[in-house]
Amino acid sequence: MDNTISLIIQELHERYRSCDEGALADYIPELTKANPDWFGISVFTADGHAYEIGETKEEFTIQSISKAFTYGMILDEHGIGAVEKRIGVEPSGEAFNSISLDPETGRPLNPMINAGAIASTGMVSGKGFKNRFETIRKRFSKFAARDLGVDEEVYSSESSTGFRNRAIANLLRNFEMLDDPVDEAVEVYFKQCSILVNCHDLSVMAACLANGGINPLTKERVLDQGNVEKVLSVMSTCGMYDYSGEWIFTVGLPAKSGVGGGVMGVLPGQLGVAVFSPKLDAKGNSVRGVKVFAELSKKFNLHLFNLPVISEQVIRRTYKLSQAGSQNSRPQAHHDAIREHGDTVTIIELQGDVFFSALERVVRSSAEHAETTDIFVLDLNRAGMFDPATADLLTEVAGRLSEAGKRLLIVDHFQKLDRGSFSADLQVEFYDQIGFALKACEEEIIKKHAETSMVAGLIPFYEFDLFSELSPSEISDIEGMLGMAASEKGDRIITEGDDPDDIYFLSKGEISIYQQGTHEFGKGRLVTTFGPGACFGDIAALTGAKRSADVWADERVTCYTLPVKSFRELETSQPTLYIKLLRGILMLNVNRLRRRDREVAALNSG
Amino acid sequence: MDNTISLIIQELHERYRSCDEGALADYIPELTKANPDWFGISVFTADGHAYEIGETKEEFTIQSISKAFTYGMILDEHGIGAVEKRIGVEPSGEAFNSISLDPETGRPLNPMINAGAIASTGMVSGKGFKNRFETIRKRFSKFAARDLGVDEEVYSSESSTGFRNRAIANLLRNFEMLDDPVDEAVEVYFKQCSILVNCHDLSVMAACLANGGINPLTKERVLDQGNVEKVLSVMSTCGMYDYSGEWIFTVGLPAKSGVGGGVMGVLPGQLGVAVFSPKLDAKGNSVRGVKVFAELSKKFNLHLFNLPVISEQVIRRTYKLSQAGSQNSRPQAHHDAIREHGDTVTIIELQGDVFFSALERVVRSSAEHAETTDIFVLDLNRAGMFDPATADLLTEVAGRLSEAGKRLLIVDHFQKLDRGSFSADLQVEFYDQIGFALKACEEEIIKKHAETSMVAGLIPFYEFDLFSELSPSEISDIEGMLGMAASEKGDRIITEGDDPDDIYFLSKGEISIYQQGTHEFGKGRLVTTFGPGACFGDIAALTGAKRSADVWADERVTCYTLPVKSFRELETSQPTLYIKLLRGILMLNVNRLRRRDREVAALNSG
Repeated sequence: MDNTISLIIQELHERYRSCDEGALADYIPELTKANPDWFGISVFTADGHAYEIGETKEEFTIQSISKAFTYGMILDEHGIGAVEKRIGVEPSGEAFNSISLDPETGRPLNPMINAGAIASTGMVSGKGFKNRFETIRKRFSKFAARDLGVDEEVYSSESSTGFRNRAIANLLRNFEMLDDPVDEAVEVYFKQCSILVNCHDLSVMAACLANGGINPLTKERVLDQGNVEKVLSVMSTCGMYDYSGEWIFTVGLPAKSGVGGGVMGVLPGQLGVAVFSPKLDAKGNSVRGVKVFAELSKKFNLHLFNLPVISEQVIRRTYKLSQAGSQNSRPQAHHDAIREHGDTVTIIELQGDVFFSALERVVRSSAEHAETTDIFVLDLNRAGMFDPATADLLTEVAGRLSEAGKRLLIVDHFQKLDRGSFSADLQVEFYDQIGFALKACEEEIIKKHAETSMVAGLIPFYEFDLFSELSPSEISDIEGMLGMAASEKGDRIITEGDDPDDIYFLSKGEISIYQQGTHEFGKGRLVTTFGPGACFGDIAALTGAKRSADVWADERVTCYTLPVKSFRELETSQPTLYIKLLRGILMLNVNRLRRRDREVAALNSG
Repeated sequence: MDNTISLIIQELHERYRSCDEGALADYIPELTKANPDWFGISVFTADGHAYEIGETKEEFTIQSISKAFTYGMILDEHGIGAVEKRIGVEPSGEAFNSISLDPETGRPLNPMINAGAIASTGMVSGKGFKNRFETIRKRFSKFAARDLGVDEEVYSSESSTGFRNRAIANLLRNFEMLDDPVDEAVEVYFKQCSILVNCHDLSVMAACLANGGINPLTKERVLDQGNVEKVLSVMSTCGMYDYSGEWIFTVGLPAKSGVGGGVMGVLPGQLGVAVFSPKLDAKGNSVRGVKVFAELSKKFNLHLFNLPVISEQVIRRTYKLSQAGSQNSRPQAHHDAIREHGDTVTIIELQGDVFFSALERVVRSSAEHAETTDIFVLDLNRAGMFDPATADLLTEVAGRLSEAGKRLLIVDHFQKLDRGSFSADLQVEFYDQIGFALKACEEEIIKKHAETSMVAGLIPFYEFDLFSELSPSEISDIEGMLGMAASEKGDRIITEGDDPDDIYFLSKGEISIYQQGTHEFGKGRLVTTFGPGACFGDIAALTGAKRSADVWADERVTCYTLPVKSFRELETSQPTLYIKLLRGILMLNVNRLRRRDREVAALNSG
C-alpha cells in the first residue's frame, strides 16, 4: 500500500519541477555550475522516519545554512553570556551581506548576517585554521550523521573573491568583536560555507533541531537542549534574509536558506524539512524552496502559530479507587470496604506530553477533589515527555499536598521524574505500576475499615466466602478433606496445561495468575493477583480441563487445599453440599465478573 | 488547599514589585499621571481559567497593543490579499515611531509601527469617525468580553500633539496607502490607542488569540482562525518594537506592548498572559513586564521553540479484534471464531490533538499492519482537536485504503471530522461508539466463519451453551417448562429491584443491560450488550436477590423463558439436571469473566 504522505510530496515535486523562475547564484563562478533542474524534497521526522523525492542525494555547498549550526556550537561552547557580547539577536531588515553593526558598539545585529556569522566562526575554539575548521566540519557531520566533505573549488573561489567579508572581519576586529588572527576567522568562515551536504542531510540536521538537539538517527546529543530554542529563535526572526518576516507570516517555521539552493525548516518537536533547488530569487532564497515550503506548511498545517488548542485530553481520566481497584481479588468484605470508602482516593492519569498546560490541569483537578480526598495517585505511565520546568513545578505541587496532609503516590515506571528532586519530607511515594499504588491505597482502607478474623496470622477456612452457605456439620465434613500447602516467593503453585489436582484457598500471602507465560516468574500476561481470602484453581477442578494459567507465589503463602477428587465425589455422595459449593464458586466468579464489568466501564469512560 | 500556580505568580509579583527601573511615558502629559507602582499579572488559560495578582482591575490606555487587534480586524474584513498591498510584514529593526515606508512603494514595513497601524485603521470600514471608531471599540470589547470605555483626556492630548502621526498619515496618503479623509483615519487611530483596558482584559484578549480566535469566556468567535496565525506571526517578529528579536530569543512568545504599561503575550493553544506596570524602558516596553515575562517563560517553560518532542503517545493503542471485542455476549462458538480470526481487524486508537505528526504515525502504523488486515478501525473518540489540514489528509489515507481493498471504519462520536468530505465511493463507515464498530467487524467474521443453526430465524433452545451437558430426555424435560416472550425496541424486559421471575434465553435480537439507571431507555451505565444465543437474568434467579440491573430490548427480540420457580424446584426433584444447569450457568459466567480479563489486560496495556 502506498504511503499517503509520500504521495503528497511526490505530487508537490511534480507540480513545482516545471517552475523555472529565478537564477543561479553567480557571485562566484563555481556556483553557476550547478544544474538548475536539480530539485529534492526531504522530510525527516523527529523519530527518524524519512519521506523523500527527487535529487535528495545530490551534493551542494551548505553556504549560509552553516550560520545556524556554528551559532549553536559557540552557544554550547561559551554560553549565552559570552556570545551575546559579540553577536546580537535583532533582525536587521537588510540583505544578508549588509554590514549591520550596532552603530554604538559595533556588535553585529544577529548571527544570520555575514558579519554575525564571521563573529561566530571567530569564537569556534581550536589552534590554527585547520583545527578550527575541523571542529566545525566534525560537528556538522554529527548533525548529518555522516562524514561531510568540502567543495575545495568553491572554497578557493570564495576565498579569492571575498573582499567584502574581509572588510567586515576587519571592522569586527576594530570593534573587538573578533580576535586575532582576523584572516583565519574569515578563511574558516569561507570553508565552512563550502561544506558539502545533500537535501537528505539537511533534513536530518533540521530534525536534530526538531528533536531537542538529539540526532534522531544516532541518538547522540549534538546540541544542548537549551541552545536549540535559541538557534530556532534567531532562525525565525533572521533566517531567510530580508524575507524573514514574510516567511514566518506565510510558512511559520524557523528556517535557514543558503545560496547553494538549500532551505531547511524546523517544526519543533516534530519535523525537519529540507528543499534543494539552486535557482534563487532576488532575496537569495531558493525559488522552488520557498514555494514548496509554503505549500507543505499549508497542506500539513505546520505553521507554528496555528498550534491546536490544548484539549482536555491531557488528563486521560480521573477516577476513584471505588471505581477501579488494584485487580487484587480479596474476601468480599474487603471489596465491600474498598467500594464504600474508595472515594477518598483520587487517581489522575495523564497522557501526552506534560508541559505547563497539562500540569495546570492537574493542579486544578487536584484542587477540585482536595476536600474529599485523602490520597492522590498521579499515574504518569501513559504520559509522554516531562519537561524539566514542569517537573520542578510538580515538586511544588507535592509540597502543597503534603502541607494539606494529603498523601501523594506517583506511578512512574519509566522514571520520567527525577525522584531525588522530591525531598524526603514531602513523603511522596513512587511506584512502578498503577496496580501496586492502588494496592497500597486499598490496604490503607482495609486497615481502617475492614478486619478479617485471623488465627495465628491465617484466615481460618470457615471464613472463606465459598463456605458461607454451609451448615456446621458440612463445615466439619469439608474440614476433614482439607490439606495445607506452603509456598515460597517465586514458587509455581499451578502450571498451565497440567491436570487439576486441588482447589486452593489462599489463607496468607499473595499469588499472581499469568497466562501465555513462558513458565518464568513474572513473565507473560498478568491476569490477576489474589490476596488472602481468595479461592483459585476452582474452574479447572470443576470442568476437568487442563489448567489454563500459571499461578505463582508472590511472597511466602499458605493455602488450604481441597482435592479435586474429594470435591467431585461430593456430587453423588453429598449432592446438597456439592450444590452449595457449586453455587459458592458461581458467586465468586459472578462477583469477579461484576468487578471486571465496573473496571471496563471505568477504563472506557474515565 | 492553595493553588501552586497562583503561589508562583504571587511570588513573582512580590519579587518584582520592588523593581523601580524605567520611567513613565511622557510624550503626552496624561500618561505621567499613572501611578508608577501599579503592577498586575494575569494569566488566562485557553479554556477560561484565570490566575491573577496585583492591580489587574486598574484601567489604562491600550496604546500600541491595539495595533495587533485592528490588524486582525482588517484581515477578517478585507482578506490578506487586499491588506498586504498596503501593509508589509517585515520587521523594521527600528523604533515604533519610525516612518519605515518601503522606499519604492511607500508601503509601511509592518502593522506594528505607527505607519502600518494608521494604514490598518484606515482600512476599518464605516461611515465617518464615530462609526469607524465604534466598530473598533465594539470588536475590542468582544475580545475583552466586556464593554470597554475610552480615556477622553488621553485621546484629546494624543490628538492635540500627534503631528508626527499626521505627517505619517499624509505620507501614506501620498503613496495611496490610505484613503481620504486622512484626518479621520488619524483621529480614529488616536482614539483607538485611548481605549481603556485593565490587565485582566488584556489576558482575556490574549487568550482569544491563544484559543484560535474564540473567546474562552463567551465562546464567541472574535477573529477568523486563519487570521490568528497571521496576527501572531507579526507580533512575533515586530511586536516589541526594536526589542522583538531579543524578546523571541529570551521569552519566545508572540507579544505586543504599549506605552500605557501593558504587555500581552500569547502561548498558542494554551495561554494568554498580561502584565501591567507603567514604567517603561528606553525601547518603550514595561520594565517589570519584560522581566516578569522572561521569568514566567522560564518557570513554566513557555518558549515556543522549546516544544516537547511529540512522543509515541499520539497513538493511544493499536490492538486486534481478537484482543478486545464489542462486549457483546454471543454463543461460545461465535466468540471462538472472533478470537481465531480477529487478527484481520486492526484498531488504531488516537489520543491528544491530531495534527500532522499524529496522522503521520497513523499512516505508518496502518502501512505496517496492511498485509494482515482486512478492516481498519480508527477510533477518534479520545482524540482532541482535529486540525482541518490533517482531516483533509485523512480523506487521502481513506482513498489509499479503499484502493487496496481494505474497509475503513471511523469512530467519531463528536463529529470532529466532516463526514461530507469523504466521498461515497471511499465507503468509509462512521460509528459513534467503538462498540458498534467492533460489532460490525465481529458480524463480518461470524458471517464468514461461524454459522449457528437457525429455525425460522430463531436460535432453537437446545443450541444454547447452557444446555450443552443435557441428555435428550433432559432437553425435553426443559422444553416442557419453557415459555416464549417477545419485546419491542425500547421495552424494559427486566427492572432493577424487582424479584426475579424468569431466566431468559435470547433467541433473536439484541438487549442491553444498564445499571444505576433511571429506568429510562439508553440512560445510566451500560454494563454489556447481549446478542442471540446469550442467557440473562440467571444470577438473580439463582440467589433469589432482587434484579441488579435493567434489561432493555435494543430492537425486536424473542426470548425463551424458564420460570425461576421451575428452575428452583429442580434442585430437589431432579438434582442431576439442576447440577448440570448450575455448571452451565457457572461456565457462562466464567467465560464472560475470561473475556473481561482479556479486555482489561488489552485496555491497560495497549
